[in-house]
Amino acid sequence: MEKLNSQKMEPRVSIIMGSTSDLGVMEAAAKILDEFEIPFEINALSAHRTPESVEAFAKGAKARGIQVIIAAAGMAAHLPGVIAAMTTLPVIGVPINASISGIDSLLAIVQMPPGIPVATVAVNGAQNAGILAVQMMALGDAGLAVKLESFKETLKLKIEKANKDLAEIKFRYKTN
Amino acid sequence: MEKLNSQKMEPRVSIIMGSTSDLGVMEAAAKILDEFEIPFEINALSAHRTPESVEAFAKGAKARGIQVIIAAAGMAAHLPGVIAAMTTLPVIGVPINASISGIDSLLAIVQMPPGIPVATVAVNGAQNAGILAVQMMALGDAGLAVKLESFKETLKLKIEKANKDLAEIKFRYKTN
Amino acid sequence: MEKLNSQKMEPRVSIIMGSTSDLGVMEAAAKILDEFEIPFEINALSAHRTPESVEAFAKGAKARGIQVIIAAAGMAAHLPGVIAAMTTLPVIGVPINASISGIDSLLAIVQMPPGIPVATVAVNGAQNAGILAVQMMALGDAGLAVKLESFKETLKLKIEKANKDLAEIKFRYKTN
Amino acid sequence: MEKLNSQKMEPRVSIIMGSTSDLGVMEAAAKILDEFEIPFEINALSAHRTPESVEAFAKGAKARGIQVIIAAAGMAAHLPGVIAAMTTLPVIGVPINASISGIDSLLAIVQMPPGIPVATVAVNGAQNAGILAVQMMALGDAGLAVKLESFKETLKLKIEKANKDLAEIKFRYKTN
Amino acid sequence: MEKLNSQKMEPRVSIIMGSTSDLGVMEAAAKILDEFEIPFEINALSAHRTPESVEAFAKGAKARGIQVIIAAAGMAAHLPGVIAAMTTLPVIGVPINASISGIDSLLAIVQMPPGIPVATVAVNGAQNAGILAVQMMALGDAGLAVKLESFKETLKLKIEKANKDLAEIKFRYKTN
Amino acid sequence: MEKLNSQKMEPRVSIIMGSTSDLGVMEAAAKILDEFEIPFEINALSAHRTPESVEAFAKGAKARGIQVIIAAAGMAAHLPGVIAAMTTLPVIGVPINASISGIDSLLAIVQMPPGIPVATVAVNGAQNAGILAVQMMALGDAGLAVKLESFKETLKLKIEKANKDLAEIKFRYKTN
Amino acid sequence: MEKLNSQKMEPRVSIIMGSTSDLGVMEAAAKILDEFEIPFEINALSAHRTPESVEAFAKGAKARGIQVIIAAAGMAAHLPGVIAAMTTLPVIGVPINASISGIDSLLAIVQMPPGIPVATVAVNGAQNAGILAVQMMALGDAGLAVKLESFKETLKLKIEKANKDLAEIKFRYKTN
Amino acid sequence: MEKLNSQKMEPRVSIIMGSTSDLGVMEAAAKILDEFEIPFEINALSAHRTPESVEAFAKGAKARGIQVIIAAAGMAAHLPGVIAAMTTLPVIGVPINASISGIDSLLAIVQMPPGIPVATVAVNGAQNAGILAVQMMALGDAGLAVKLESFKETLKLKIEKANKDLAEIKFRYKTN
Repeated sequence: MEKLNSQKMEPRVSIIMGSTSDLGVMEAAAKILDEFEIPFEINALSAHRTPESVEAFAKGAKARGIQVIIAAAGMAAHLPGVIAAMTTLPVIGVPINASISGIDSLLAIVQMPPGIPVATVAVNGAQNAGILAVQMMALGDAGLAVKLESFKETLKLKIEKANKDLAEIKFRYKTN
Repeated sequence: MEKLNSQKMEPRVSIIMGSTSDLGVMEAAAKILDEFEIPFEINALSAHRTPESVEAFAKGAKARGIQVIIAAAGMAAHLPGVIAAMTTLPVIGVPINASISGIDSLLAIVQMPPGIPVATVAVNGAQNAGILAVQMMALGDAGLAVKLESFKETLKLKIEKANKDLAEIKFRYKTN
Repeated sequence: MEKLNSQKMEPRVSIIMGSTSDLGVMEAAAKILDEFEIPFEINALSAHRTPESVEAFAKGAKARGIQVIIAAAGMAAHLPGVIAAMTTLPVIGVPINASISGIDSLLAIVQMPPGIPVATVAVNGAQNAGILAVQMMALGDAGLAVKLESFKETLKLKIEKANKDLAEIKFRYKTN
Repeated sequence: MEKLNSQKMEPRVSIIMGSTSDLGVMEAAAKILDEFEIPFEINALSAHRTPESVEAFAKGAKARGIQVIIAAAGMAAHLPGVIAAMTTLPVIGVPINASISGIDSLLAIVQMPPGIPVATVAVNGAQNAGILAVQMMALGDAGLAVKLESFKETLKLKIEKANKDLAEIKFRYKTN
Repeated sequence: MEKLNSQKMEPRVSIIMGSTSDLGVMEAAAKILDEFEIPFEINALSAHRTPESVEAFAKGAKARGIQVIIAAAGMAAHLPGVIAAMTTLPVIGVPINASISGIDSLLAIVQMPPGIPVATVAVNGAQNAGILAVQMMALGDAGLAVKLESFKETLKLKIEKANKDLAEIKFRYKTN
Repeated sequence: MEKLNSQKMEPRVSIIMGSTSDLGVMEAAAKILDEFEIPFEINALSAHRTPESVEAFAKGAKARGIQVIIAAAGMAAHLPGVIAAMTTLPVIGVPINASISGIDSLLAIVQMPPGIPVATVAVNGAQNAGILAVQMMALGDAGLAVKLESFKETLKLKIEKANKDLAEIKFRYKTN
Repeated sequence: MEKLNSQKMEPRVSIIMGSTSDLGVMEAAAKILDEFEIPFEINALSAHRTPESVEAFAKGAKARGIQVIIAAAGMAAHLPGVIAAMTTLPVIGVPINASISGIDSLLAIVQMPPGIPVATVAVNGAQNAGILAVQMMALGDAGLAVKLESFKETLKLKIEKANKDLAEIKFRYKTN
Repeated sequence: MEKLNSQKMEPRVSIIMGSTSDLGVMEAAAKILDEFEIPFEINALSAHRTPESVEAFAKGAKARGIQVIIAAAGMAAHLPGVIAAMTTLPVIGVPINASISGIDSLLAIVQMPPGIPVATVAVNGAQNAGILAVQMMALGDAGLAVKLESFKETLKLKIEKANKDLAEIKFRYKTN
């Protein structure tokens, strides 16, 4: 894949994960941002292993032009909430299924106490995290809003394709 | 499998799913309807990707002669409830195990608020969805009621077969 | 409340519960049937305390003209499934919250194995059980189908009322 | 409370709930918007009782100038997802604890399938829904961003107050 | 209540609990034993506070003529399993609801590893613990077996009483 | 394996399962009974597919000399409770993990309402079901009680073996 | 209660909570420390409201002579883990039941990823947090170890008292 | 791996497990202790199979110079709590995932009643158990405290490595 001249691009979204093992899940968010032509960065941070880097990142993100932060974590997933505590940017949390079907990370991300929200998506819901980031940025970016309308249309294609496939299925009493 | 002349059949049951990936589970419902010689259709719809199609389907189903709707969905499974909101036909919901052992889809289907019921079966319980549809239609179809009695008899065969198999198992102190 | 001349009415729906303590929940089903002018009976049965009576009831229900059975139970809620095993009539199961938030009764009712479905509604969802029974019977009763359409319209009234109430709420920046 | 001249205000946020009984929880969102001086509206809608109104609302919200939708629902909470299916605006979902500790509504809201995100907050987490809406709008509104910085400072006051209270607590070996 | 001449009675069942606060639940087991005229003792023991007493009790129970042990505990409920490890007598475990709806104690009692069973009853299911003890002892006591048959008959009385009560309930379309 | 002359043996324990697919789990119970030289039978029964056979079995078991019934079932596991409703013999329930980690069958078996206990063991805990049956029978069979003491001693062997294996593990700072 | 001359005491344990509302639970930890005559401090900190104070506290605790930190939090309970990330002192986490029976806070505390442990106690288990702190400190403090032995003896008193109370309970067939 | 002269080493930590099958999980604890050059022993014990050995071990551990006990168990995991009941040493419990995602063992370990704490780590969290043991011992061992500071630094290396890996990932709009 050819990379655009990244020197000229300033990232508008920051995707954060705690381990490269999360990349398999999180690249779905990156693909959405690519599709919407939104510059983004991907970095590894850990609320527990590199708290100082998390702090530096969270406090500096807005000044660097970041608009939305997508943070993924598993188990006792503190990363999204800890970042949210140190920025006024919206933080989207992606619970990673690393144990107990991801229920631990889901609860550790979504059940934030009053004052510091994290916009939580489904367990392993990285694609939706990307879309949600675009929806947020579209509030101040009319071009993105138009693209979102087009994107929403494409969602129907999967269902149209499914109907074609289902039309091929044969049962004696199936009428369609 | 030879298909009957479908032009002459009008579907009485509509099986709806959100993705062809649900077909592996849902064909058990189709097999039951085939066995009871009840014409049915299978289509893909999504409460989130094609809400307009869902609405058109739900509002038009009864006029087309559909009597029962079987709707399958996973995760935050809204499809059965959303269809039920727009028809007076009984809707049978099949929770698909797509994450968290299917507990998310089970709760998202069964816990409908007062006013709009969805007749919920077990996680991945497509066969029972088919049987339940037949039971409902048999209320106004004496022939189906007779077939159901016969069908119920066949359920015993699996147990009879199991007993034959278990009779072959050998332990020193096993008496049968 | 004046009772109609019950001698002339034959019950079409049978509401079964394991204890009078379930009546507080289950009368919502009775009210729906009253509203739709469908004769019904209410009896207590227990899969564990009176298994013979359950069998006699389940096997004789159809011949008595019963079309739908609504069965409520809590804890290890076997009653709906046990009845379903001995009739071809559709059985609607209402999980009663008697312990563990009703999760035990929900799972004990909805997770029926293949062959014997129970149409399960929400925990304590007695009103929906009544509506679902009407929807089933309406398959062979055009008059009921018409009443269901009207009933569905009345569901909107609660929301209209809510909007009136919410219009009274005052905040400085509330615009409506 | 004196109301501002609402004729001149166009709502930027829409708070939706299914019942006035949710108002006790949801007014925390309204208070936040009031505090940030963001015009908003409060309405009742139900994915199941008034699906047409939900559709009209969701499809028309953006054209009316709504930027963020906050939707609250309990049990099989379909409202946030159904709205999200019909708009490109970001939708914030608030799971209401109406049964099973709110786990049913949490899962029915957060576990949205790919393509249609709902930004989910904690069970009954209405205040955070309000703050998250402000964070989203601040992406295109520098004034709000400044106010958010100030708001974040005030969060510390509760802890300062708590420390003063805790300083009063006496134990023989307590040193502070 | 007049007490029988306890000097002449040797206990056949031992009811163990960790705290007098469990007595409200556990007296249902005592009442059953009283009803079946089976001498029993009630003592407090704790797997964690008095491990030596638990050991002495468990190892000496059989020699004292105890036939069945009923042990109740809440939270991380180790008492039934720890007793079972030190006796060959059957141990009935009663999970007490002291937190998390009793799910912690249920799992801590029922999920015993291979080799050391605990016969587990429902959360707070003390009455059934008593009945189960009688059923076990009846294996070698024909008189008890006869009493159990009579007892089983009495279970129906509650349902008969419920039916009388339900017959009093009036709805316009109620037929019975 | 050579089978004893089964004509001369009357079964004292009856192992019941709903499907031959449960045999892989349940043979652990059979092996225990073989080890204790207790005649037993294995049969398939289903609370839902063959309710009449269940009734005939349950009501006739005691007269045939059966002392303990071990019943295994998955999902909405009604079999143990339904059998217990129709006999005064002790019934041991084995929850089979067929879905949702076996939590559905565990709750459907253990949460029996007052009056009809089922002695529940761990999910898939067939070996413990066998041991528990022996413990019950040993109440009236001194020979079995002696064998149980010996059996309990053998449980230690696995730990002794484990310690030998662990002694082989090498770490620089491991001292044993 | 008379307070000791706190000027001369340097705290060895630090109890941290997020709100004065946690004090009702957490004072059980303070009482234990008082009983063991261990100087301690109580402060409010929030991982989300005052992250800088948490950092200052965590990084400075050891130099101030703190040996063990007890941190309590509810919902998405990040405080114990965040503190643990910034100190090498052992951190004891107390999950507070603020929602969902405390399961959210339990998982958010105990499921820490590799590298940064939090010593977790039961939901609302503040007393055990205090005892665990003493056990840790006793590793380098022979006097505390002796006191712990005495304390352990006192645990039996509650059981002795319970046995006296239970001896008063009267049933006809109760033998003790 | 070369073993140090173990005769000269007295173990300071004791790692206990119920089966060699737990070794795959638990060797992570051993590796940590090796890394910190802390002599330790590994033994198999079972609360249920070898209760006398558990008692002998627990009561004698302190006199043998053991400072911290790490105990792992699955299912109804009593071992850590039973050991804790018979020693004043701190006991670290490691829930093993042997069934139900390890939720049974987690609750059976962490939910200890007041008086007897077990310092619980994550399901299968053996590495953290090792680190926590070191943190406890470092309270009285300044050398260990220094090593812990170094160890904490190494935790960052994994994140640094991850960032290098993530820098290699290519998307068109990825800026870093």
